[in-house]
Amino acid sequence: MKISLRETAAKLSAAQKIIITAHTNPDGDAIGSSLGLMHFLQELGKEAQVLIDDDIPAIFDVLPGYEHIGKPEEGQSIEADLLVALDVSLDRIGKVSEVVKAPVLNIDHHITNDDTADMLYLDGTCAAAAEIIYQLVKEMEGTFTKECAMCLYTGLATDSGWFRYSNTTPATMRAGAELIEAGVEPNIISEALERKPYESVKGLADAMQHIELFHEGRAVGVFLDFATIEALESTEGLIDMIRVIDGTELAVVLKEKEKDSCRVSMRSKGLDVTKIATKFGGGGHVRAAGCAIKKPFAEAKAELLAAINDALEQQA
Amino acid sequence: MKISLRETAAKLSAAQKIIITAHTNPDGDAIGSSLGLMHFLQELGKEAQVLIDDDIPAIFDVLPGYEHIGKPEEGQSIEADLLVALDVSLDRIGKVSEVVKAPVLNIDHHITNDDTADMLYLDGTCAAAAEIIYQLVKEMEGTFTKECAMCLYTGLATDSGWFRYSNTTPATMRAGAELIEAGVEPNIISEALERKPYESVKGLADAMQHIELFHEGRAVGVFLDFATIEALESTEGLIDMIRVIDGTELAVVLKEKEKDSCRVSMRSKGLDVTKIATKFGGGGHVRAAGCAIKKPFAEAKAELLAAINDALEQQA
Repeated sequence: MKISLRETAAKLSAAQKIIITAHTNPDGDAIGSSLGLMHFLQELGKEAQVLIDDDIPAIFDVLPGYEHIGKPEEGQSIEADLLVALDVSLDRIGKVSEVVKAPVLNIDHHITNDDTADMLYLDGTCAAAAEIIYQLVKEMEGTFTKECAMCLYTGLATDSGWFRYSNTTPATMRAGAELIEAGVEPNIISEALERKPYESVKGLADAMQHIELFHEGRAVGVFLDFATIEALESTEGLIDMIRVIDGTELAVVLKEKEKDSCRVSMRSKGLDVTKIATKFGGGGHVRAAGCAIKKPFAEAKAELLAAINDALEQQA
Repeated sequence: MKISLRETAAKLSAAQKIIITAHTNPDGDAIGSSLGLMHFLQELGKEAQVLIDDDIPAIFDVLPGYEHIGKPEEGQSIEADLLVALDVSLDRIGKVSEVVKAPVLNIDHHITNDDTADMLYLDGTCAAAAEIIYQLVKEMEGTFTKECAMCLYTGLATDSGWFRYSNTTPATMRAGAELIEAGVEPNIISEALERKPYESVKGLADAMQHIELFHEGRAVGVFLDFATIEALESTEGLIDMIRVIDGTELAVVLKEKEKDSCRVSMRSKGLDVTKIATKFGGGGHVRAAGCAIKKPFAEAKAELLAAINDALEQQA
């Protein structure tokens, strides 16, 4: 059931013990908005804890509260006044949905939210869930501690690609300005988040040796079979390296992560890549989507290329 | 002679024919602030032209007015009411200083400005020269056309590393917000500026094969001799690839661009790299500096490593 920002604020005000969660495979916005909300609620004297059903990447250790993020355990049972699920539809919070016994308040900025929570506050104009939490703090006439601000800023910055993507609005920038005033040092956050082990950077350079242009240069891809992936320390950030290639409308990375099971990431400059991703049961945004193809490398690559071909033909 | 923002505005108001220039090897701020000021002055009914003594990289063709940027020619002579030199000390405007006959108004945000112009407005708190031009438009109670806003935004965004560097202030973010309101689409600018030819990305991947960690992992570098550079299509963006390596305090790229002449770029996470750059007659900012070493590759590399070693020792 959809509710307003004011109603959302009222629900939070009324609750004392609050569990906060976000999607598995958590990114900067999932983690930043969760920790940001936690700090704000704790400032109000509430009992607030973040519980995410996944490992939290170590780069986020720059965020205050990182070390207190919990992980739900099989068979565990937690009573609370409210479960706040951020940046997510409820099918992606893992074991948290079984472990936490509480009404669910879902706060999201993805227009694809499935609206199955007890209460949903959705604002698709926000660049990040953290931008909604920022507005919530304002609505509740709160102030931003440096700790809270650092977390919310991380959400804002990562989901907007450091204020580069089309979701960046004047409101996003002004929220960023206020959070910097509250003590955020953007360089500290960005340097921490951009950290990569030496082996990762080496791995990226090696993976980039496999760049292929196709469809007359309208698309670029890197396709890595299981053996190649195994030999590479990391391929993180690969798609961002190739999506900038001049003249391309679409970038794709396919990785055979396990034998006969491939993960696909796509980026576009306008072409709706969800149309390709949904063919394989995936999803995402118009310009950034992904899917899994449970097939051997060669087969998965061929089917993906055919789907990309169709999409480019329709576009032309 | 240093003047105030108000005096700077008055000088611009009083002039009718204005030539705008910036440093050679122009970057996003040099070009963006110049074109932004040009659009603003033209809106005021003035005759304004940008003249830069260098080629303008093609990625900037996204900026309105790009095609009208002129290049001074040997023996040419241009009379004007004012020469505005942006983002630069006067020793780096090339032939413009001989060609244009006019009093020079220098506008800069580099605290290292040599203050040799007839008039200098310097604000080291601004992330970009474009941020000063933004303030100047406000001071003159002007409005931002979309054309002007796109150019100024480009200056802001590029010099602040898309609002990631330590020079990013609340004022920088709020200027960005207002420019987006004036019609800037950040994704259009960022996608255009990030464009790289396929060969460039390939070149980057190849250059990254030369990464060296040194000083017990506290520094990372890529050192490319003339033969290696010749074989690479491009090495642009190389320093940004390596500066993220975990545990490093300093990143350096040395390129023997011509036989026996090396260019050095350095980035740090706090260590003052101008101290190293100035040893070789270079300069820059605390966290980003560069220099030229007119020596053969091996000799230049050895001297540079020794200077870096000294700097790291002092830091430890």
